[in-house]
Amino acid sequence: MDLNEYVTAVPDFPIDGVSFKDITPMLSHPEAFAYSVDQLTESARGMDAGSIAAFDARGFLWAAPMAYALRLPLVPIRKAGKLPRATAAETYQGEYGAETVELHTDAVGAGDRVLLVDDVIATGESMRAGARLVEGLGGTVVGCAAVIELTYLGAQQKLDGLPVVSLLRY
Amino acid sequence: MDLNEYVTAVPDFPIDGVSFKDITPMLSHPEAFAYSVDQLTESARGMDAGSIAAFDARGFLWAAPMAYALRLPLVPIRKAGKLPRATAAETYQGEYGAETVELHTDAVGAGDRVLLVDDVIATGESMRAGARLVEGLGGTVVGCAAVIELTYLGAQQKLDGLPVVSLLRY
Repeated sequence: MDLNEYVTAVPDFPIDGVSFKDITPMLSHPEAFAYSVDQLTESARGMDAGSIAAFDARGFLWAAPMAYALRLPLVPIRKAGKLPRATAAETYQGEYGAETVELHTDAVGAGDRVLLVDDVIATGESMRAGARLVEGLGGTVVGCAAVIELTYLGAQQKLDGLPVVSLLRY
Repeated sequence: MDLNEYVTAVPDFPIDGVSFKDITPMLSHPEAFAYSVDQLTESARGMDAGSIAAFDARGFLWAAPMAYALRLPLVPIRKAGKLPRATAAETYQGEYGAETVELHTDAVGAGDRVLLVDDVIATGESMRAGARLVEGLGGTVVGCAAVIELTYLGAQQKLDGLPVVSLLRY
């Protein structure tokens, strides 16, 4: 299946000059969505992931069915102020300004093998912040998985040798 | 399985006086999460849903595995400014202030049988706004499904006879 048929480039969104990769056509086509989930789930199996960390909000769309299929804990990494209990936080420079992500401190334990999941890997800064959060709680990041990777933004160089799995590369 | 064991009440979050129902313990326990997804999926089957509409962001966590399991289109209903193409919008009075939700205008078609899915039904205003969006595009809302319903807030009165399915009621 050519997943590229289910991604629409939207020019000048969310700001001028950015070509936004819209994954909602993939969500509208159940066979394409299931295929993308299944491919990422297989990668998670290959990395022997012990839990699935999901980036707020679109990362939830893939991470949740992966965690369901694998019967693994699902660990939300959320924007600041969304998680109600004790959190660890990391701030990074996003594509459109400074962003803070948080993780419940009891969501990852020493030795946990965590796979980070998002819809798109762009600059890699959010994945790097997520990795710092997981490692700060004693976990090990087994890799970063996404439907789309914008390779021209050079995320892999920032991710210090972490395995990166993506289904579509631009 | 008693799902109530996997919900933690967090006092005074996000504002003083509110007891927040934290569903992250359910996410941490794969058997509980899978059970909650399976129960809602069975409800969706019973309502003969043709697509699954998911509220940004925690609604995604249940709606995505439901859509995956049922091989149905997944329709995101997002906070303002998140969807990149032409949208319909509805503003409503949320628990903590005015909120706007949006839906891509091509995400629902005439005659579509749409199930609205969120993690929590509180006042019912967001579900009502979602129903207006779906109906405005010619779709039919077959029901509202959530893990948790705060029955003391009286959502069902606001939902004009729409079937409501919830797994836990407080």
